Order: sequence, then C-alpha cells, then structure tokens
Amino acid sequence: MESEYIGYLAGLLTTFAFVPQALRMIRTRQARDVSMTWAAAMTAGVFLWLCYGLVKNSVPLIAANGITLFLLFIILFVKIRDQGNAGS
Amino acid sequence: MESEYIGYLAGLLTTFAFVPQALRMIRTRQARDVSMTWAAAMTAGVFLWLCYGLVKNSVPLIAANGITLFLLFIILFVKIRDQGNAGS
Repeated sequence: MESEYIGYLAGLLTTFAFVPQALRMIRTRQARDVSMTWAAAMTAGVFLWLCYGLVKNSVPLIAANGITLFLLFIILFVKIRDQGNAGS
Repeated sequence: MESEYIGYLAGLLTTFAFVPQALRMIRTRQARDVSMTWAAAMTAGVFLWLCYGLVKNSVPLIAANGITLFLLFIILFVKIRDQGNAGS
C-alpha cells in the first residue's frame, strides 16, 4: 500500500498548484487571462480522470481529481460570468 | 479493458490543455506570467503521478504524465532562463 502514498503526494502537489489560480479568481472576480478552451478541456479531462479513479478503485486519483474538479468549477463559474459581463 | 479508454481520453484532454501554454512560451521565449511555485509544484506532482502510474502499471497514467512532464520541462527551462535574463 506504499504506492498509494506516492499517489497522495502527487495529488497534493498537482491539486495545490490549482489553489492560487482559483483564489485569485475568487478575489479579483475576473478570468480574462484564462482561456475558455483550457478551462473546458481541463474540466472534461479531470472529470474523466475521476471516473478512471472510480473504475480503478484508486483513492488518490479520486481525491485529487475530485478536489481539482471543484476548483475548476469555481474557475469556470467566474469565467462564464466574466464573459457575460463583457457585453454590458 | 474499457476503463483504460477513459484514462486515455482523460490524459488526452489534460495533456493537451498544456500544449498551448508550452507553445506560447517557446514562441515568446518569456515566462513572466507563470509562477515559479506553480511550475515547480506541477513538475514534482506530475513526476510523482508518473511514478504512481509505473507502480500501478497504468499505461494511461504513464503516457499522460510522461508527455505533461516533458511539456513542463520546456516551461521550466524557459522560466529559469527568463529569470536569468531579468538581471541583465
């Protein structure tokens, strides 16, 4: 089960790399510097990694991608609202 | 083996989300808008996901994180050279 620790540490690093991005967007309420293509591709990809983790019964994959998906939803929400404001 | 296809599709999406970032840096040769903390945390994290994939014998994890690690090395290389130029 030591291999699971490698997964947890990996997930901790790649998930926390997302936190400053999400925090900045919550604070500034702007998402102009993040491309919609990137945000959409990442959301779809991370959702599928979460599914892969569920099928493979890999707790590190499920935990890391579950949290990253939540952060991506925040980024997508700010991004979509920001695009809506651009017209006004 | 259908579950592997979920992993391949997930890897395709999250890996290709990195390509525009790497391409932009190769073109502009600048990495000012990318934080060193983010680049270092991602490189370490993706390296550990690669190790996790090797231990778990998961080809999608190995392939996706191998390619992402290569792209991150490009980003890190440009970033470190960019920081070096900032002093001159």
